[in-house]
Amino acid sequence: MGQFNTTDILAMEQRYRAAFINSLGGFKSGVLVGTVSKEGNTNLAIFNSLFHLGANPALCGLIIRPDSVARHTYENILETGSYTINHINEGIYKQAHQTSARYDREVSEFDATGLTLQYEQGVMAPFVKKSHVQFALEFAEKHELQINGTILVIGKIVKVILPDECIGADGFIDIERAGTITVSGLDSYHTTQRLSRLSYAKPGIAITEVS
Amino acid sequence: MGQFNTTDILAMEQRYRAAFINSLGGFKSGVLVGTVSKEGNTNLAIFNSLFHLGANPALCGLIIRPDSVARHTYENILETGSYTINHINEGIYKQAHQTSARYDREVSEFDATGLTLQYEQGVMAPFVKKSHVQFALEFAEKHELQINGTILVIGKIVKVILPDECIGADGFIDIERAGTITVSGLDSYHTTQRLSRLSYAKPGIAITEVS
Repeated sequence: MGQFNTTDILAMEQRYRAAFINSLGGFKSGVLVGTVSKEGNTNLAIFNSLFHLGANPALCGLIIRPDSVARHTYENILETGSYTINHINEGIYKQAHQTSARYDREVSEFDATGLTLQYEQGVMAPFVKKSHVQFALEFAEKHELQINGTILVIGKIVKVILPDECIGADGFIDIERAGTITVSGLDSYHTTQRLSRLSYAKPGIAITEVS
Repeated sequence: MGQFNTTDILAMEQRYRAAFINSLGGFKSGVLVGTVSKEGNTNLAIFNSLFHLGANPALCGLIIRPDSVARHTYENILETGSYTINHINEGIYKQAHQTSARYDREVSEFDATGLTLQYEQGVMAPFVKKSHVQFALEFAEKHELQINGTILVIGKIVKVILPDECIGADGFIDIERAGTITVSGLDSYHTTQRLSRLSYAKPGIAITEVS
């Protein structure tokens, strides 16, 4: 087994450390974030930092590094309050990855990558047409994280679009069936294979597989 | 396609909404968080909210609902400053899920689920012996998120333990090879199958698969 302590991590070459530390968090949600500036320039960017924050109110968090290629997304969210989250599937993952290139602000990553825009009533920001699970967020709150200058952006889910046949009787969404893929590290994309769903856990009671 | 707006989400039955909204964020990192109280009581809890926050300094964030079953983990982190993250593999995912049961504080989930403790020099909190990718965090910063009362807990990575053969020449850790699984919704566990790693994206240059 390899063991690494704080000194070892600090001694790593910068890109090596970025790849190493980014891998440690486990499998992540890779999503495309669609936005538009107040001048009407659309933007599309891949993020690996989306996370569930609460169901009532329905909230998601996103970590943004304001000095990175993600700064256009951040500026657009603050300008319009609107952004969309689009799950990535096998058919679009290479185009999704390409959105991480450092395009100028006036270039739309939709055009540059060939991903088609989709507009929905009541949502200013554009969706990605080929994404199978899509939702829109309304900006709610931000926190600057002093420790490294990143921003936690919190949004409220205001619209959800997804295939009816992926919604279970109990509200569970079968994102595997919808073709959603997962990301590890900075650049590795993976399909999934369900082991099982497990029953609600209680002390002293054996859990069972839920069909 | 199903479409749901804010009114539809608010009208959902509570458990249905929890399952639905928890699924939307995509595949997540499911990890076991090991802690110990200042009296020496160990605790183990599954979390789906771990995320990468930065590589230099090496940081991870964790969302904790302080009124939930996760409160013991939170109290222990504040008391000792030490916690461990243990990736979940197919061999332990049912025991991992069982840690979400509401045990009394004096009950150790290690004992209750049969997962064996592992101690490492310089780290107060216990690791999970059967986990293949393990790391220790030192509490660094917390933020109360006013919008729903959850706490963002930020920790600094101080020790990493993982199989040598899973570390690539560029620092990438092959967590799929290490057997790490992923989670969707509240209770669905999945293995993964790599599509590919993709090259660093630049404007106007086609991305390639990295071997």
